Amino acid sequence: MAAAQNQSYWVSIEADVETYLKKAIPIRSPESVFEPMHHLTFAAPRTTAPALCVAACELVGGDRSRAMAAASAVHLMHAAAYIHEHLPLTDRPRPKPTVHHKYNPNIELLTGDGIIPFGLELLARSMDLAQNNQDKILRVIIEITRATGSQGVVDGQYQELGIDEIGSTDYEIVEYVSKKKEGELHACGAACGAILGGGAEEEIEKLRNFGLYAGMLRGLLGKNNSGIMEDKIEKLKALALKELESFQGKRTELIASLVEPSLPAAQK
Amino acid sequence: MAAAQNQSYWVSIEADVETYLKKAIPIRSPESVFEPMHHLTFAAPRTTAPALCVAACELVGGDRSRAMAAASAVHLMHAAAYIHEHLPLTDRPRPKPTVHHKYNPNIELLTGDGIIPFGLELLARSMDLAQNNQDKILRVIIEITRATGSQGVVDGQYQELGIDEIGSTDYEIVEYVSKKKEGELHACGAACGAILGGGAEEEIEKLRNFGLYAGMLRGLLGKNNSGIMEDKIEKLKALALKELESFQGKRTELIASLVEPSLPAAQK
Repeated sequence: MAAAQNQSYWVSIEADVETYLKKAIPIRSPESVFEPMHHLTFAAPRTTAPALCVAACELVGGDRSRAMAAASAVHLMHAAAYIHEHLPLTDRPRPKPTVHHKYNPNIELLTGDGIIPFGLELLARSMDLAQNNQDKILRVIIEITRATGSQGVVDGQYQELGIDEIGSTDYEIVEYVSKKKEGELHACGAACGAILGGGAEEEIEKLRNFGLYAGMLRGLLGKNNSGIMEDKIEKLKALALKELESFQGKRTELIASLVEPSLPAAQK
Repeated sequence: MAAAQNQSYWVSIEADVETYLKKAIPIRSPESVFEPMHHLTFAAPRTTAPALCVAACELVGGDRSRAMAAASAVHLMHAAAYIHEHLPLTDRPRPKPTVHHKYNPNIELLTGDGIIPFGLELLARSMDLAQNNQDKILRVIIEITRATGSQGVVDGQYQELGIDEIGSTDYEIVEYVSKKKEGELHACGAACGAILGGGAEEEIEKLRNFGLYAGMLRGLLGKNNSGIMEDKIEKLKALALKELESFQGKRTELIASLVEPSLPAAQK
């Protein structure tokens, strides 16, 4: 029963983010640019980082609508990274699992390049003079650019190239990659949601840590089924839940369910 | 004599932007990420768009330092676009002029991906509570994301793929590409400089137009030497200078010199 409630919470957030994004990326002129952008934005697999952004905003008492632009930007950064990861570059050491390429690689490359600034534009435009939220928006832009840039997701992608070459049995690298990719994306999503929801600094940092552990956990799920990995996942779960101890109320249970490997809505 | 003064003005701006950028991108950990980032940022050919950003700021009476982060961000966006344009993708219709590739394509791809958020982070971090410039910074972020995204530079790159296929004699497409690439990048640079320098709305729009025409002109220079192109360049020069008519003072002559094809500092 609780599991069903938890699931429907995440499903409802994901539906809201998708509706917001579909409105934000209409297929407009130039169509040769926006049609692939629209398609590839929704073709990328979902992560739970955008939903966590919204959940964190609600947990600290903010209205869901405040986190929509940031949650969408988090998905757009992820989608751009995903598109570029799956480009057929000539010297790719090991082919990634087959991806259906609807467009040629030049178009997919440029579409990724267009999606990154678009996500940040969406965010910058969400400033609201009535709410006087400019400082919060700028802070969120810094959070997102850091998490998705050379010290975050891009660093994870670099290290993953190494895994491609040496085989994926080096747990330390696998863990580092899941920290830099899924971990920092979720940490950033959670921190941004807490900032926009008006959370206190302590709440923001606790939710950032929760996001890091929960994101790493989700990144490691399904990577392989060894005992070492299962141990790590159990440890990450405990660490994540510890960060939520000081939060009260029904929403705490909802957000905590992100660390349940069985959560069906939380696609990787 | 005037030509020498004009030249030394642009040279001094370019030197300041380079110093600022070198400080902003130290080679730090993870070195495998930041060393290519540093190298490729400075390996990209300069455009005059960042210098125009600084010149516009000074023309409206702002201190040069106010425009440094935005000018650097404009160069970083250009550098990222340049790196991705020169990736050896498998189905590139026609090879671009040979570029020395120091890194493998995966690294160059990811470095471009890291540079875009880094540029916007640099900009967001330049908010200064003492100056209370948050609104200006957010406005500049929107300017830069629009100009470099799917409605600006990326659109130009898409259309240029078409030129690669059909030969570069279609003047309309060549003109469209120079508008979307060099034109909008310079328009954006000029507008951002004017915004940050505290220009009035009318000044911002005039400088934006000046940047558009001057940037297109610089984009078309050297494309080919046909009479049609020379005509277009003369027309763009007249249009650009017309936008400066209402500006007074010695700095007007300095900024106007951007439309002189002979300006040696203004590398393409």
